[in-house]
Amino acid sequence: MHNDFFYRLEAAEQGAQVSLEALLPQLVFNADGLIPVITQCAESGDVLMMAWMNQVAIERTLQSGRVTYWSRSRQQFWVKGESSGHTQQLVELRIDCDGDTLLCQVIQSGPACHTGRENCFYFTIKPEEDQLTVLSSRP
Amino acid sequence: MHNDFFYRLEAAEQGAQVSLEALLPQLVFNADGLIPVITQCAESGDVLMMAWMNQVAIERTLQSGRVTYWSRSRQQFWVKGESSGHTQQLVELRIDCDGDTLLCQVIQSGPACHTGRENCFYFTIKPEEDQLTVLSSRP
Repeated sequence: MHNDFFYRLEAAEQGAQVSLEALLPQLVFNADGLIPVITQCAESGDVLMMAWMNQVAIERTLQSGRVTYWSRSRQQFWVKGESSGHTQQLVELRIDCDGDTLLCQVIQSGPACHTGRENCFYFTIKPEEDQLTVLSSRP
Repeated sequence: MHNDFFYRLEAAEQGAQVSLEALLPQLVFNADGLIPVITQCAESGDVLMMAWMNQVAIERTLQSGRVTYWSRSRQQFWVKGESSGHTQQLVELRIDCDGDTLLCQVIQSGPACHTGRENCFYFTIKPEEDQLTVLSSRP
């Protein structure tokens, strides 16, 4: 999706900076005001989960350093780990080239997945296979 | 989002298998028939990009081993690298716990980003900073 703000930034040099005040209104939110967020372990590089943020959730995440999503099923802010204790401490927030996806690199306390597995991506399919395989049992 | 099919699979043991025929219709597609796809370098663990697939794109990706998205801007299948040569060879396709996100682990030929950068996530914000920083210049 073409976005003038991010299109102009394609030519920016390493180290160039843009204020958050200018940036945040230019992010591409969907019709529900949400942007997809990939969450990755800053240490292992494992992709832990995917969830959604609105603009306020982004601001709260940056200000508090505790990753805060918008829960689509509960229609409320979701401070990850608030009930389970399995918090995510933000190391850095990355944004992609066209401003429509976020990548949170985090220090994860305990498992990221609600099943107790380390991450949510525990089903795998190899090319040309006609079935998926479960990678890990529930702890 | 609760999904009975994936809810039952939470208790599945490591190594359990499910046929693709049973699985594919149970994936959670949005109102446009699309599911978000995170693409990760199988070697470095770097998150390269995020895009979308419909059910046919998933089938083509698995059958051909070449990652094939659905382009929302062009409204057509998008075999990654078909014009640029920067293809993605599928190593494995992961699915998350509630069946609404895919994770493609790939061998990436050349840069993944259309700007020529290695990946699309070249903007970063650190917690408590009030600006983003560009991580790399356009090659």
